[in-house]
Amino acid sequence: MPGQLINGQKLKSAKMNALVYHGAGKKSWEEKPKPIITEPSDAIVKILKTTICGTDLHILKGDVPEVTDGRILGHEGVGIIEEVGTAVTDFKKGDHVLISCITSCGKCGSCKKGMYSHCEKGGWILGHLIDGTQAEYVRIPYADTSLYHIPANTDEEALVMLSDILPTAYECGVLNGQVKPGDVVVIVGAGPIGLACLITAQFYTPAEIIMVDIDDNRLEVARTFGATQTINSNNENALQKIMTLTEQKGVDVAIEAVGIAATFELCEAVIAAGGHIANVGVHGKAVALHLETLWSKNITITTRLVDTVTTPLLLKTVTAKKLDAAKLITHRFALNDIISAYDTFENASKEKTLKVILTNK
Amino acid sequence: MPGQLINGQKLKSAKMNALVYHGAGKKSWEEKPKPIITEPSDAIVKILKTTICGTDLHILKGDVPEVTDGRILGHEGVGIIEEVGTAVTDFKKGDHVLISCITSCGKCGSCKKGMYSHCEKGGWILGHLIDGTQAEYVRIPYADTSLYHIPANTDEEALVMLSDILPTAYECGVLNGQVKPGDVVVIVGAGPIGLACLITAQFYTPAEIIMVDIDDNRLEVARTFGATQTINSNNENALQKIMTLTEQKGVDVAIEAVGIAATFELCEAVIAAGGHIANVGVHGKAVALHLETLWSKNITITTRLVDTVTTPLLLKTVTAKKLDAAKLITHRFALNDIISAYDTFENASKEKTLKVILTNK
Amino acid sequence: MPGQLINGQKLKSAKMNALVYHGAGKKSWEEKPKPIITEPSDAIVKILKTTICGTDLHILKGDVPEVTDGRILGHEGVGIIEEVGTAVTDFKKGDHVLISCITSCGKCGSCKKGMYSHCEKGGWILGHLIDGTQAEYVRIPYADTSLYHIPANTDEEALVMLSDILPTAYECGVLNGQVKPGDVVVIVGAGPIGLACLITAQFYTPAEIIMVDIDDNRLEVARTFGATQTINSNNENALQKIMTLTEQKGVDVAIEAVGIAATFELCEAVIAAGGHIANVGVHGKAVALHLETLWSKNITITTRLVDTVTTPLLLKTVTAKKLDAAKLITHRFALNDIISAYDTFENASKEKTLKVILTNK
Amino acid sequence: MPGQLINGQKLKSAKMNALVYHGAGKKSWEEKPKPIITEPSDAIVKILKTTICGTDLHILKGDVPEVTDGRILGHEGVGIIEEVGTAVTDFKKGDHVLISCITSCGKCGSCKKGMYSHCEKGGWILGHLIDGTQAEYVRIPYADTSLYHIPANTDEEALVMLSDILPTAYECGVLNGQVKPGDVVVIVGAGPIGLACLITAQFYTPAEIIMVDIDDNRLEVARTFGATQTINSNNENALQKIMTLTEQKGVDVAIEAVGIAATFELCEAVIAAGGHIANVGVHGKAVALHLETLWSKNITITTRLVDTVTTPLLLKTVTAKKLDAAKLITHRFALNDIISAYDTFENASKEKTLKVILTNK
Repeated sequence: MPGQLINGQKLKSAKMNALVYHGAGKKSWEEKPKPIITEPSDAIVKILKTTICGTDLHILKGDVPEVTDGRILGHEGVGIIEEVGTAVTDFKKGDHVLISCITSCGKCGSCKKGMYSHCEKGGWILGHLIDGTQAEYVRIPYADTSLYHIPANTDEEALVMLSDILPTAYECGVLNGQVKPGDVVVIVGAGPIGLACLITAQFYTPAEIIMVDIDDNRLEVARTFGATQTINSNNENALQKIMTLTEQKGVDVAIEAVGIAATFELCEAVIAAGGHIANVGVHGKAVALHLETLWSKNITITTRLVDTVTTPLLLKTVTAKKLDAAKLITHRFALNDIISAYDTFENASKEKTLKVILTNK
Repeated sequence: MPGQLINGQKLKSAKMNALVYHGAGKKSWEEKPKPIITEPSDAIVKILKTTICGTDLHILKGDVPEVTDGRILGHEGVGIIEEVGTAVTDFKKGDHVLISCITSCGKCGSCKKGMYSHCEKGGWILGHLIDGTQAEYVRIPYADTSLYHIPANTDEEALVMLSDILPTAYECGVLNGQVKPGDVVVIVGAGPIGLACLITAQFYTPAEIIMVDIDDNRLEVARTFGATQTINSNNENALQKIMTLTEQKGVDVAIEAVGIAATFELCEAVIAAGGHIANVGVHGKAVALHLETLWSKNITITTRLVDTVTTPLLLKTVTAKKLDAAKLITHRFALNDIISAYDTFENASKEKTLKVILTNK
Repeated sequence: MPGQLINGQKLKSAKMNALVYHGAGKKSWEEKPKPIITEPSDAIVKILKTTICGTDLHILKGDVPEVTDGRILGHEGVGIIEEVGTAVTDFKKGDHVLISCITSCGKCGSCKKGMYSHCEKGGWILGHLIDGTQAEYVRIPYADTSLYHIPANTDEEALVMLSDILPTAYECGVLNGQVKPGDVVVIVGAGPIGLACLITAQFYTPAEIIMVDIDDNRLEVARTFGATQTINSNNENALQKIMTLTEQKGVDVAIEAVGIAATFELCEAVIAAGGHIANVGVHGKAVALHLETLWSKNITITTRLVDTVTTPLLLKTVTAKKLDAAKLITHRFALNDIISAYDTFENASKEKTLKVILTNK
Repeated sequence: MPGQLINGQKLKSAKMNALVYHGAGKKSWEEKPKPIITEPSDAIVKILKTTICGTDLHILKGDVPEVTDGRILGHEGVGIIEEVGTAVTDFKKGDHVLISCITSCGKCGSCKKGMYSHCEKGGWILGHLIDGTQAEYVRIPYADTSLYHIPANTDEEALVMLSDILPTAYECGVLNGQVKPGDVVVIVGAGPIGLACLITAQFYTPAEIIMVDIDDNRLEVARTFGATQTINSNNENALQKIMTLTEQKGVDVAIEAVGIAATFELCEAVIAAGGHIANVGVHGKAVALHLETLWSKNITITTRLVDTVTTPLLLKTVTAKKLDAAKLITHRFALNDIISAYDTFENASKEKTLKVILTNK
């Protein structure tokens, strides 16, 4: 145990390797102290598999100033419980677990409403305000309400997609967009999150799903994942094409999965009266909300940081083989080769990358 | 009957008086042909009581270009059925009726979904695309689905408030805002619509209703109507005060009842995580949607043109004396004195006007 | 036109053939007057395809006393508009239409709430209180709100399943049962309605659908239609097996599609805490509601006569090829061979009949 | 501290007084060991105020066999934290707390869904499976998720009504009944729970609330609490009167707050098409569900053991003076005079008792 006195002698802290942020543009795979239990509700998890998120790239650009020098990145992964604090009752050493990107205390007003994203003590903190999962070990606060047991005989690699990307797509995009049978849905952005929206939107049997992106490879993937129409908005006027496809009625649901003004405004322009715009993208600036036309269109716009409140539901769909999460994974690396993995993830268009898996051996 | 052949001789059309729009800034009380049945589903209603809406002032400013020279204004009122077309089954001559500001065919996809505002053949057309209710007689298309029987022993004058202002406030503000017991609600704008939001929000027993306006008289009225806090945003920093009142948490529901960028952005600034912004105001320009902060706040923004789908519900609350619609009425005029009524309505601050009633004698 | 005076001479009424009820156990295919427009909102439809419903068998047993001698049976079908009344605006001679089993006036309080089943002037009247669709022609009251346009290039035969069976299954079973992704659903009864529940439940991607019946053929069909488990309750203890399959938790949704006490009580016995029991079956007697155990189980029980309010949604799923309605059809007959069709439908187990199609040549 | 070693000497356990069940018909106020922390998530609460519930009378009749000899009764109350376990983070010694009748672990699947009543480790256990609140001290498991902070300057006595009776009425009756503005509501049973339904139903501004009971005093109280009609079903035919009052349409919402077959069947008989029957009563036997008439009436029946998930909402309405919980209290006793309090509560009709308050001095 790190820091313990053994035979009257203080041991050096145990060490591990981790991907560490050192300010905008700087990261390294380096030695760090192995995390220890600091609160009774903590668990220490040995990482088995983790991945890289678009948000990690944002952090590395310096766009997320609350992430400070020395922070271990990563908020996704599956692992094995190494140790639990005295207040942890539902997990024990050796349990295989799915780590939620959102930490939930389970007690505050937000958690009781199922809005874990706004947990007073948690929320998105992993790889953000506390050390994260791109490491050999990670400390998980409020373990009982922030980890999920992995059912036996489950493809654990696929479950890494349930840490963030699938609940994000499902909650912020599909549930907030209120997709229903027979709907016409447009998803703007065919990156991993947009594609996860495409997959989970099909839980509700919409009539049409139109994907918009500027990357032909991703649009091709979208077609194999069930998109009924694809539009490369570099080559075609997306607005015009969507309106033509819908006989000028517009779409029932528009999911924004990019995070810039142009794509949000495209959603505003194509939404039908009575429709739902579900924002999934992380935005850095204000966008123009065209209330001069929308005020009378009976529309709903939603925003949401994923709550991961649907993780149990998604686990059930995976177990029942109704959700093939693995198909979002395109590349695999050893965890200690994470710098290469970042390269592959950053050059997504060239490398045709969706999600990468990093395995801790 | 106008235009009929009686004893082989064409009668001169019957005449009536009406308030007629003649381009921006110009209106007159003048003689017009009395309307006649043109479709089997029409009814001709003799107006008993009507009123003036803020939208009529917008039209008179020239802000609603689809209203053309010669149009009779007005989309609110109660009256007596004078004549019905052959397809009208639920109304007959002599019935006292409430006129809905929204015309609904009852047959199109929008009407079947209860979204009468987007009726393919109706919607807001009275005093807009067809002649309206500020007249001695009005033609009501789709009478069966656009008029409501007035229960016996009802204060008909009060019901004029149910043509537009109360369903607008209730549907666009209160229902879309999802006001629930214990909520903290802010209503920005204490004009007639904002006050109607205040009245109908209390159907759901919120803990606090904060009214924001720049007119002290209207804020004083708001207090007598049940506001628990009022803020004159000319004298105080509304944002700061709302955040202080809510211990920096913000409000559960923010209802925008003005229609300008500043008031909408105030709603964006004070909304709590998980909250609802319900737009009621008619906007002429885009507003800035601060997705750089709102993207992760789990909020919902709604827009709506009133559907008047809740008119039967509101009628029940009036009949049961749970809704005192009459208290929105501050001034009364004879219909043929409508020019004076417009003056009083336009000088609302000075005259302390909320809604005016015009009576056809 | 039937009954018209032409050249001062009354024509004999036009004639057609129809399936006529003559009291319990008696029916015949016989000559009847061709229907005529009696109200301005009527349409006369020439039947192209119709079918037989389990309810028709109930009527023939004498179980539906309000059906009187001489009534033409049938409430399902597709056809071509032959003639419309003067108040019909949305249909014209030659239009291909889907006939809803529920007649909706579109104007009464129930219709405005989308509860067409309780339309004050309509509801289920076809082949019940007025003559029905098992005939060469049928009069459809309130045509504008009781018929649906058939999109071009649609398999019209398959659409006969949308007159009754599919909206019934979807509304009363699946929507009322609130099936959601990951759920465990039991459907008790694998007749045509139960199978239609099975098909439409899959719109929402449940994890498991357990079908219970006593007919092995129907259970085999259920497996090909997507059931994950089947139970022949003659051979196995259904209660015990369902509890074992769900690890003693019970099911999230139980759909009763038979209409007898034993099957309803099975639903009561297997429902999990928080679950939904959706009754679809037509019951002739009271059942025991075990409130001594259910009072504290947080369950919801629903009943419903189909409203057909989801017909437009279902049409979209058919057009988008997300709903293969045709697979419910097992046998085809000429309309004038309807007596044989009744035989085949009544001997469903022996003939392996689900739905029959009757074609008017 | 009970059981501690002080100066090497084991102290006798501390003692307290409590109301103890000794089998059907037998109870006594007697000395018991003061409870101690047994799990890290426990708190020991010194009772300030408690009350007696109808359920306690059921237990004393022997109707709740899982309550065993020696059990301290009671599941309601307010108090002061005396001590907390090491895993308790949100409460500390000296905090004034409201005790929920439902114990929630905050971690299991049911708790995460807000269905605390079916908590895998909690639910209704106080005064049932573990010792309860009719004592000087009580041990509260899962304190962080089963207690509520009492806001400063709150009438603590009134809050005793929020332990059980008000959330039960609100959740099982009013929320499940989906009471909305303009509705006609019948509440069968004007005991404390029925009256609490009456109070909280008014959060939603129904048009009419009809109370049915056999006790004239309680009906008179109901009128002062806002009932618009009362029916003594001993003197009048309740079914007939309700149908007359509703012009034979029946009621939108029927709340059963008695727990016997006759009252539940009255709800079945008076429910309008599309209406909601919300069961609140604790039933000991099956009732007849008249599916032979209800199958086609589009109704919803709900059952529920209170989850107390709305306690925070109810606390807000109390703080905002929108809910006057105190008016349910009719009698006050010292805690050590609880035997007299039971007498008064059991003879409710004669004593005109609603709820009694027991104060621990």
